[in-house]
Amino acid sequence: MNTLAGSVLIGQSGGPTSVINASALGCIETAMASANVTKVYGAAHGIKGILDDKIYDLTMEDPDELSLMRFTPSSVLGTCRYKLADFLSDDTDYKQILHIFTKYNIRYFFYNGGNDSMDTCSKISSYLALHNYECRVMGIPKTIDNDLACTDHCPGYGSAAKYIATTLMEVGRDAKVYDTGSITVVEIMGRNAGWLTAASALARLQDKDSGPDLIYLPEVPFDMADFLTDVSRVYNRQGDVLVAVSEGIKDKNNTFISSYFTDSTKEKDAFGHSKMGGLASNLAAFANSKLKAKVRGIELSLLQRCAAHLASATDAEEAYLAGKAAFEAAESGITDKMITLMREPGSVYICKTGLADLADVANAEKKIPRKWINEAGNGILQPFIEYSLPLIQGEPDRPMKNGLPRFACLKRIQASVPAE
Amino acid sequence: MNTLAGSVLIGQSGGPTSVINASALGCIETAMASANVTKVYGAAHGIKGILDDKIYDLTMEDPDELSLMRFTPSSVLGTCRYKLADFLSDDTDYKQILHIFTKYNIRYFFYNGGNDSMDTCSKISSYLALHNYECRVMGIPKTIDNDLACTDHCPGYGSAAKYIATTLMEVGRDAKVYDTGSITVVEIMGRNAGWLTAASALARLQDKDSGPDLIYLPEVPFDMADFLTDVSRVYNRQGDVLVAVSEGIKDKNNTFISSYFTDSTKEKDAFGHSKMGGLASNLAAFANSKLKAKVRGIELSLLQRCAAHLASATDAEEAYLAGKAAFEAAESGITDKMITLMREPGSVYICKTGLADLADVANAEKKIPRKWINEAGNGILQPFIEYSLPLIQGEPDRPMKNGLPRFACLKRIQASVPAE
Repeated sequence: MNTLAGSVLIGQSGGPTSVINASALGCIETAMASANVTKVYGAAHGIKGILDDKIYDLTMEDPDELSLMRFTPSSVLGTCRYKLADFLSDDTDYKQILHIFTKYNIRYFFYNGGNDSMDTCSKISSYLALHNYECRVMGIPKTIDNDLACTDHCPGYGSAAKYIATTLMEVGRDAKVYDTGSITVVEIMGRNAGWLTAASALARLQDKDSGPDLIYLPEVPFDMADFLTDVSRVYNRQGDVLVAVSEGIKDKNNTFISSYFTDSTKEKDAFGHSKMGGLASNLAAFANSKLKAKVRGIELSLLQRCAAHLASATDAEEAYLAGKAAFEAAESGITDKMITLMREPGSVYICKTGLADLADVANAEKKIPRKWINEAGNGILQPFIEYSLPLIQGEPDRPMKNGLPRFACLKRIQASVPAE
Repeated sequence: MNTLAGSVLIGQSGGPTSVINASALGCIETAMASANVTKVYGAAHGIKGILDDKIYDLTMEDPDELSLMRFTPSSVLGTCRYKLADFLSDDTDYKQILHIFTKYNIRYFFYNGGNDSMDTCSKISSYLALHNYECRVMGIPKTIDNDLACTDHCPGYGSAAKYIATTLMEVGRDAKVYDTGSITVVEIMGRNAGWLTAASALARLQDKDSGPDLIYLPEVPFDMADFLTDVSRVYNRQGDVLVAVSEGIKDKNNTFISSYFTDSTKEKDAFGHSKMGGLASNLAAFANSKLKAKVRGIELSLLQRCAAHLASATDAEEAYLAGKAAFEAAESGITDKMITLMREPGSVYICKTGLADLADVANAEKKIPRKWINEAGNGILQPFIEYSLPLIQGEPDRPMKNGLPRFACLKRIQASVPAE
């Protein structure tokens, strides 16, 4: 074993998830238990906290309060979307990073995020190595979008998928209760990959009275005329339609459908701002061009990525394990890798952690295989169900107080420079 | 005891809730156990099912499946918004109702809804009495809006309040994770009464890191300039703002604020339809007039009334009891009443059912007392917290399958005319 003594720094990046803090906790708790670790620090707002020397001393937190991170949504350390320059062209940020790492004797750095974060990890690691600063750098995957390469799935996805499936079951029931016709369109996150929207198909799995009738993903070019035909066909058959649509659906020219309702008209509201037309509302209204139904657009918005109350126990557990595995790997001497989740072959779902090169993850984006989508491009096939169903299993035994979730409230104490 | 033998008919009306089916189940199960009851029927889509002779024979359903109604959102029998005429001016509908009641020997009629439904109950009862048709008519309260008179609170409200408080805790966490400024406005249901929006205040109760900073209700005239001042003040202090706003906020001239963004501009989208401007998005954009924050509008839409996965156990239990009490009262000879929920005085929450005259409920609307809202009209005071907190307690032990809720799937078999 290649022993390295020093402190640990963890940062969170990109859009949060219901279980991103479970990953951080897995890393923090494992690091705190290690004899090689002096201090465990958290960076405020990811890389920006490092640049600004906003570093929390997590060893000052109450361990019981810290343990509530397992059930607390969003990034308790704060997050950012900050892109580091290439250090060959501009090394300003890197000099500051090296300064801060040296100041706090950071020998283990963990960054919890998506593919941009893995790019950040990779760049920092290269720079530190170039300056002979020994530090092990590991990525911990996180994204509701489930679009990271080299891993079967991503921590955060299972919980968002469970939220979407459950919500579509409930909304599906609600949208059909009147005997007057209705067209309901639900907009789900996902600019380039349809994993989240596809999860709406799980809503139909056990409830014939519910779930979406039509599902549109960014993986298949979207055609307005076909959409109108699809909706009319379902509406004429059953008197109501529930549609699930990715925010990122594009036409055959790769133009976002959402831009049809904003750019082209360039309308302003009464205060001179561009009208924020909801894709869902606008598609519902369009679908109703030739029908006279009641239309409703619903945007799941932030709710789908922060609904920890509907977290998947499987996802929360895997998120924790990913953080734990990241520290264990680093402690054993590994660096420049991202933890992956590897599904074992066979009919029983077993998932273990693995490792992927940061660079392989940084520049890739995983989409839904075309063969998992029906030929018409408006529905999801069985292989996706088999893929996703194990990921939404179980309900975490989350702590409650006064009928509401009890989230971690950290003290967030600025780290002092360790004594020599 | 004034014994009356015959069949039971139950209908559901108005917008559904997470627990409306628990009330129906309480009534159905109690009725099925009574020796006085021949058959238990359900009307498809409320009064419209009676007019169309779409009557389900609930005794044909599997009792175990039926029992899942306790945890199934939306109206399993279907609902309607149908206003009966005054029978003195037009008795067409009433003749048909009397015909159907006679056909199926309905001697107990239960209607589950809001104040319009109590009006419907009252009219039907008067007409039947006028034609010497003996039938006991009872209203079972239901509304997420919590605006019914004569009752401490309404079945359906506690669950919606729990959903709103939980969601605002989660969204509040999410909206604050970036260190770039943000203004988030969440639109909550309630045209005339702010009970639902006020429940967002519960989100701050135990989580200083979350919950809305500003809350606006229909009970207090809304002023755009004051709103801008409020938002700017909070934003300048903390760098982000979370606002909860009722869909029904009005200015001092009683004009809906939402109409500022639609009627006045009369803009059409690319397809000639009126643009459906979201109040939340538009208010967020307006609030940002003088700031340069990231803005986001979130509409809780149908989600807040159908999220059975976040039902309050207290609410679900009281909803069941209201249905049970309705049948028990009717069987004992009572008619023309609505079941109420009566809170016992004292610091421990105890709730019992009571009775109110249908007519007293039909023509009233209960709003939040002005003294429960702060003087500035942008926040909620302690008496509301004490009122609402007991209503959101407990999580029902809902049945799950494959990581998703297991809802009741009824056979909905058309009733046949009973043998003589």
